[in-house]
Amino acid sequence: MNLECFFNPRSISLIGASHSERKLGGTILKNLLKFRGRVYPVNPKYNDLMGLKAYRRVEEIPEIVDLSIIIRPATEVPEILVAQRDMVRCAIIISAGFAEVGESKLQDEVKRLGQELGIRILGPNCMGIYNPYGKLDTLFLPYERLKRPKRGNIAVTSQSGAILSYLFGAIRAANVGISRAVHYGNAIDIDESDLYEYLMHDRDTDVVISYIESVGDGRKFIKNATVLSEKKPLIILKSGKGSRGEVAAYSHTGRLAGRYEVFSSILRQFGIKEALDLDDLTDKAKALSLLRSSKGNRVLIITNGGGSGVLAVDECMRQDLEVTPLPEEKKERLREIFPDFYVVNNPVDLTAQVRDEDYLVVLKELKDFYDGFIVIALANVLGITERLSEIIKNFKEDSQKPLIFHIDQSEISRKLIALLERSRIPVYPSPERAVRGLKALLS
Amino acid sequence: MNLECFFNPRSISLIGASHSERKLGGTILKNLLKFRGRVYPVNPKYNDLMGLKAYRRVEEIPEIVDLSIIIRPATEVPEILVAQRDMVRCAIIISAGFAEVGESKLQDEVKRLGQELGIRILGPNCMGIYNPYGKLDTLFLPYERLKRPKRGNIAVTSQSGAILSYLFGAIRAANVGISRAVHYGNAIDIDESDLYEYLMHDRDTDVVISYIESVGDGRKFIKNATVLSEKKPLIILKSGKGSRGEVAAYSHTGRLAGRYEVFSSILRQFGIKEALDLDDLTDKAKALSLLRSSKGNRVLIITNGGGSGVLAVDECMRQDLEVTPLPEEKKERLREIFPDFYVVNNPVDLTAQVRDEDYLVVLKELKDFYDGFIVIALANVLGITERLSEIIKNFKEDSQKPLIFHIDQSEISRKLIALLERSRIPVYPSPERAVRGLKALLS
Repeated sequence: MNLECFFNPRSISLIGASHSERKLGGTILKNLLKFRGRVYPVNPKYNDLMGLKAYRRVEEIPEIVDLSIIIRPATEVPEILVAQRDMVRCAIIISAGFAEVGESKLQDEVKRLGQELGIRILGPNCMGIYNPYGKLDTLFLPYERLKRPKRGNIAVTSQSGAILSYLFGAIRAANVGISRAVHYGNAIDIDESDLYEYLMHDRDTDVVISYIESVGDGRKFIKNATVLSEKKPLIILKSGKGSRGEVAAYSHTGRLAGRYEVFSSILRQFGIKEALDLDDLTDKAKALSLLRSSKGNRVLIITNGGGSGVLAVDECMRQDLEVTPLPEEKKERLREIFPDFYVVNNPVDLTAQVRDEDYLVVLKELKDFYDGFIVIALANVLGITERLSEIIKNFKEDSQKPLIFHIDQSEISRKLIALLERSRIPVYPSPERAVRGLKALLS
Repeated sequence: MNLECFFNPRSISLIGASHSERKLGGTILKNLLKFRGRVYPVNPKYNDLMGLKAYRRVEEIPEIVDLSIIIRPATEVPEILVAQRDMVRCAIIISAGFAEVGESKLQDEVKRLGQELGIRILGPNCMGIYNPYGKLDTLFLPYERLKRPKRGNIAVTSQSGAILSYLFGAIRAANVGISRAVHYGNAIDIDESDLYEYLMHDRDTDVVISYIESVGDGRKFIKNATVLSEKKPLIILKSGKGSRGEVAAYSHTGRLAGRYEVFSSILRQFGIKEALDLDDLTDKAKALSLLRSSKGNRVLIITNGGGSGVLAVDECMRQDLEVTPLPEEKKERLREIFPDFYVVNNPVDLTAQVRDEDYLVVLKELKDFYDGFIVIALANVLGITERLSEIIKNFKEDSQKPLIFHIDQSEISRKLIALLERSRIPVYPSPERAVRGLKALLS
């Protein structure tokens, strides 16, 4: 299925455009001013809106538009669709007031009309699409209220608008970026499965994260999620995990959530990644956005703080990663190089006396023996400097294996973290989260 | 046991004081300049150090000091202790180079000398004590490298210096404060159990968090941890949870970690709280620092974002908290008050159309029926303003029950979060973490 009319339309009509940014139809129109294609605001009361020529009726629009964005009251939506017969390819129905408030009949009518008229529908009860590469932004939250993440390679699909906007903040905080974001709401036509199919071919997207409360067509979901997962990482956060959660999810979108245990075991069976919670989703997405997945599960931990190293070991064990002991000959070699009080084990503990180069010494000696590396650099000791980022960057260019940092967040570490992430080396604020990031990369 | 000589000494000697902040003995001396009692720097090469009269030998100090801080090389420590016979009550041995690097004999000698001379010892291989109430700070990290948290009511005991400094950052980020912090290192005399005994009587401390790799005297640990837990919340983060972790913990402090499963089941049996990881430890500490624990496990979730509410329900179920349905008569009452599209269930979903007062309406109607409240306010909608903090503050003054916020972190929410936390209402950056915070308060 071709969803280009949604993600890269050449022309857009906005039914319910407004002159005021205090109204949803005004906020969206303002966002659309940046769009590079043609925009047709529709409002019976105006001749122009925000400097664009306005149209009183959809019938007056002079071309067949790729995408129609509808933000009129729910009860008007059927007639708006009919009025656009043969004049539009796709529609995003932002309007709420359908199955989520018990208006299932109205929703069914809209669904039927979409099929009859050959109009593909995203929504209703949704925020629509954010595509920074195409400068398309249908989200009705103004920039002052919801800062958009930078352009990047993570696609987000969300059944919940709240979670989509939460993830915008989390992705910005994680210092990674977005390729596409979609909130599809009640999903009467386009659902997560259709989006997976689109995203598997999307060249801007390297990772897909997907918040799901319920799945419409289970077979299609498994098929598309599996095929997508074979091409690029897909991480699913499923909510409504227990009986009470199911009720809450139903109230929210009018779709039944289904038994979580069944869902989760199917994901495992088909090798699709699952996130435990929002932190976990963001942490995994960050690692997969910056680094490539890799084979194996033997992990080397290098630290300058004993306790942080032990906590990393604990998390490796919870994540089924193997903290393999050092080969004896490498142990001897490192003991010759390092002072006596360095602890040459796994973790290698470089202690508070560490110097930047010590990390490189260990990595060079052991790079062939391990599949992934956790590097812990507590930046409050004198021997850790910004030079560490240069050292690690050079090592990374030689090695294809994933390397993840934990650095404690403080005024003094901010610059070092920024430098590392500029070289696409992910840094996490706790040792456990660093390990969970690495886990997302190893298989 | 009286540990006042450690935490509130009247006089301090610093053996190994230095003129330069680039040396540990200089950093500590600089920190001690703020101390209000008498300070005696000892260094054979100087007459004065940082404006204080310096002493060439400990024997020249003109009084019996409460606390001696020792930062000379490990091999010199025994003679330093002997030289202070009858002249000192307590000693913090900062110096490393003992059992953690295989020098167990030297460590045993120091331990024996402490007993023989009647000097209580904290350390060796430790950072010592931070007591902002007594302006005592023996940590060898300068302020530029490790910002200290504000004064507060959380006491931290840590077997690892790295974790102590990590927690300083985490506690600052959580916007709570510290009453006492102790890193006790190899623990040849004072250990976590002794500290629990001291802290149970400490009036500045309302919550104790404790990072442990290994326990010396198991019986004493259980006894003191249990008695402390009965007086104020104690949260333990135990590392070295598996066989590899045990080895790592042993390398780090030279004490054997023991079987984690046994340890954990004992904690449960005696009702002592345990944290899963560093995030969990900080999240629990924050809730317990700001609010009082309470009975019951029925939770009401009020949200303005459907998905965030469902994720909160999921976490409640994982935490064994009951998301009890609303009583029918309250449901009817709220349906009369609210617009049709608000979802009157548990969670109550006030949708993106929410106004600040809506939260109060729900809380007032249902305050008697629930034991704890999760309030989710996604601040990117127009109806959420800073007034919400005032509304909640007033409600909180009427109600003794714990109320916890999740607000997504953004430029726009910063002020609201700060205002709420000024009123001692904890705010968390994800719905799941908010629920885990609430769990720490309910029993």
